Amino acid sequence: MLKRVKVLTMTAALLAAFGSNLLLGNAIAADKTSEVSVFSDKDLNTAAWLRDAARLDNASYRILESLTTEVGPRMAGTPADARAVAWAEAKFKELGFDKVWKEPVTFPSWQRGEEKAEIVAPFPQPLTITALGNSIATPAGGLTAELVQFATFKDLQAASPDAVKGKIVFINHKMQTAADYGSVQAGRTKGASEAARKGAVAIVIRSVGTDSHRFPHTGVMNYEDGVEKIPAAAMSNSDADMVVRMIKRGKPVSLKLSLSSGANGSYTSYNVIGEITGSELPNEYVLMGGHLDSWDLGTGTIDDGAGCAITMAAAEFIKRQGLKPKRSIRVVLFANEEQGLFGGKAYAAANEKQISKIQAAAEADSGQGPVTQLSSFVRPEAFAVVKQMQAVMAPLGVVAGDNNAYPGPDMGSLRSLGAASFGLTLKADDYFDLHHTPDDTFDKIEPARINQATAAFAVYAWMSANSPVNFGSGQEPLKSRK
Amino acid sequence: MLKRVKVLTMTAALLAAFGSNLLLGNAIAADKTSEVSVFSDKDLNTAAWLRDAARLDNASYRILESLTTEVGPRMAGTPADARAVAWAEAKFKELGFDKVWKEPVTFPSWQRGEEKAEIVAPFPQPLTITALGNSIATPAGGLTAELVQFATFKDLQAASPDAVKGKIVFINHKMQTAADYGSVQAGRTKGASEAARKGAVAIVIRSVGTDSHRFPHTGVMNYEDGVEKIPAAAMSNSDADMVVRMIKRGKPVSLKLSLSSGANGSYTSYNVIGEITGSELPNEYVLMGGHLDSWDLGTGTIDDGAGCAITMAAAEFIKRQGLKPKRSIRVVLFANEEQGLFGGKAYAAANEKQISKIQAAAEADSGQGPVTQLSSFVRPEAFAVVKQMQAVMAPLGVVAGDNNAYPGPDMGSLRSLGAASFGLTLKADDYFDLHHTPDDTFDKIEPARINQATAAFAVYAWMSANSPVNFGSGQEPLKSRK
Repeated sequence: MLKRVKVLTMTAALLAAFGSNLLLGNAIAADKTSEVSVFSDKDLNTAAWLRDAARLDNASYRILESLTTEVGPRMAGTPADARAVAWAEAKFKELGFDKVWKEPVTFPSWQRGEEKAEIVAPFPQPLTITALGNSIATPAGGLTAELVQFATFKDLQAASPDAVKGKIVFINHKMQTAADYGSVQAGRTKGASEAARKGAVAIVIRSVGTDSHRFPHTGVMNYEDGVEKIPAAAMSNSDADMVVRMIKRGKPVSLKLSLSSGANGSYTSYNVIGEITGSELPNEYVLMGGHLDSWDLGTGTIDDGAGCAITMAAAEFIKRQGLKPKRSIRVVLFANEEQGLFGGKAYAAANEKQISKIQAAAEADSGQGPVTQLSSFVRPEAFAVVKQMQAVMAPLGVVAGDNNAYPGPDMGSLRSLGAASFGLTLKADDYFDLHHTPDDTFDKIEPARINQATAAFAVYAWMSANSPVNFGSGQEPLKSRK
Repeated sequence: MLKRVKVLTMTAALLAAFGSNLLLGNAIAADKTSEVSVFSDKDLNTAAWLRDAARLDNASYRILESLTTEVGPRMAGTPADARAVAWAEAKFKELGFDKVWKEPVTFPSWQRGEEKAEIVAPFPQPLTITALGNSIATPAGGLTAELVQFATFKDLQAASPDAVKGKIVFINHKMQTAADYGSVQAGRTKGASEAARKGAVAIVIRSVGTDSHRFPHTGVMNYEDGVEKIPAAAMSNSDADMVVRMIKRGKPVSLKLSLSSGANGSYTSYNVIGEITGSELPNEYVLMGGHLDSWDLGTGTIDDGAGCAITMAAAEFIKRQGLKPKRSIRVVLFANEEQGLFGGKAYAAANEKQISKIQAAAEADSGQGPVTQLSSFVRPEAFAVVKQMQAVMAPLGVVAGDNNAYPGPDMGSLRSLGAASFGLTLKADDYFDLHHTPDDTFDKIEPARINQATAAFAVYAWMSANSPVNFGSGQEPLKSRK
């Protein structure tokens, strides 16, 4: 049931909603008198009912409990990766998805090994550290060198090789809020090659995390081609504070670092996909999902078991209520996000020729919720429907965002190909307390939070699947606007 | 300057203050017309000034920063134990104590070694565990057996050997508040022998701690003579929650445990003592202190670097202000409290014949403060002075306790010998979040808390040293009331 309204009556509100990020506002302005399709009141009532019912359901909590208890840590390329894939296929089937399949994803495998560090002078103390993903090993027995401290990656970039040569670089960049992730992460991802170019023998960073517990945060790092590889590790914020206090005393501080991590051939895992098949346009599909792999230190609960569980439960709940989505809803659990977005890239490559079939894409990969904002990346003809989606989500505390949505790390590749996308922003205040640490465990999950996120994703999926307008994947202006 | 008042005028207030725990109330009642000595208003003003000035001083924070940065973990019997002793002697001297000395303490040494655990069936996952202090090793390569769960140590005591034989006992007793420590700790200290008597091959307990982070809490355990020794370890609360979820699924849960811990001969460490010598009664002394040793996982900040720093700073502050205590003030940093109160017992044995010289004893060993209550264990003639001490501390938020004070674990042996004692209760709401874990690090210290505790201990030491009455060590009724 569709309802048609004059765009004329919507324009002011749409302009307010999309503000300065309004995509091609002139196109609307030029077409003020045309009509656009929106949801009928009846459809909106169904969506509101779905929202409220899903919020009282605990399916995502139970799915997450299952994944973290029965599989736990599932680092890409390990035996637990295969167990996670088997779990996902079985769980989709158990939940009653109409179709379940998997698509291969091949990547270089990395293994952690033993890891130890200690200050050997002037104040001998063990440190709590962990190897960064992709790090090579130290020589057997470890390496020992003086630390040289930099406040940020940029300071390392600006440093003279004379200050660095033969030393272990220590980047002491404290992450204060989730908004810092990008800038602080630069030291983790690019620090080793920058340090190696200046003659460093290893790099240790203050963990990229907002907590003050004695947990090191792992995470991927990359070596630049043609630059010598040096070992790379992270220490906990508590340890970094201590090392800073030692360095302040003015004597050289020497660290002994022992890692036995390293490359381990290649491995084929799978994106695992479950579909609720559409009743009218089954070949068009709404995508949502998370990444199935996790780091090995914790149990992959908030990163990203939560995203898998939220989106599996959102789709399953729609089906369980007997609602028939017009388009298909596909939940994709991506392989190996952590070490380089391998699953997301493989999925985009496999779907590049049928981007126009993707009605919308949105990923959950910032923890357990709640969802705080709904932003879009759609053609202007869909703005009115997006506004209706935002209105339905408003009682969840979800505010309207702009039309420049980031759909998440794995779905990002699809957006780059012109797929219509949504950003369901997850509140990440405490996400980087746990992110990539041993402390990412199920006891941190609060049902009210994950249930709200599930309700928001259910509304997203249902309204996208039943939208009276196509959101514009592969069409202008999305096609040419990356 | 003393002031003399009729006890008659104090009795009602004293009865109110000491309530049902009034020690020998009849003795006071029978002597209503005698006179007792109390502090003059001038002395009380000095004490109040000391309280407020000490609270604004950061010496304890700086001392604790020094200990945890320059020594860090200092498990009894390790090379770091000797470094801690050297640190303490040097720090007492640097702080200007009049006399500094050490007294030997010999004990059996224990070493930790490697420690690993994993669930091998039905859901393979690594666990985060740590050996309990004194635990023997597993066979090389580890041992694997089915878990059998008990809610508490008492439930294990009540169990049939048939349920336990050949299995690994898992005590799942969750510590909810600091008040639970005694009952929950029973599983840690006595669980292994109880389990071994029923044929268990090992024991793993839910950590004795109130946090929900993935830190196991270590702590001492003891083997009963004549009972087979089995390995003993603790898992984090997060891991225990997970194991419980696995067990609930109804299939046998098998754990592989590998420990290489074990006894390591004997070791001689030292109680390190600093004295501010009294101006009038130098051979009488007020005792305060903490224990210098710590567990090895963290840096021994709240347990018990804080107690050492608070009491060192409290005495040093008195001296630095030019105040002259009439009796001596001795700060004792005890050796090896963690593995069996060795330092406290040695100090009591060495001082048994001069208990009457101890004006008062009080230890700080429950974290960084604040002090919430002042209780006493003194002869009735000192009640009026204790009330004055409580009144001086009241603006710190310290309430009056009873006359049945526990002076702390190491000072406890002195009380058993009849030493007058004080209990300066430290607020322990969050103490057992960090206690015996890797997370016991300096970044958790809040200056306002430790400064308040330092002010309370300074008032305790100053008023006890200058008290117009002897508190009654070695006299009746303390002598005969343990």
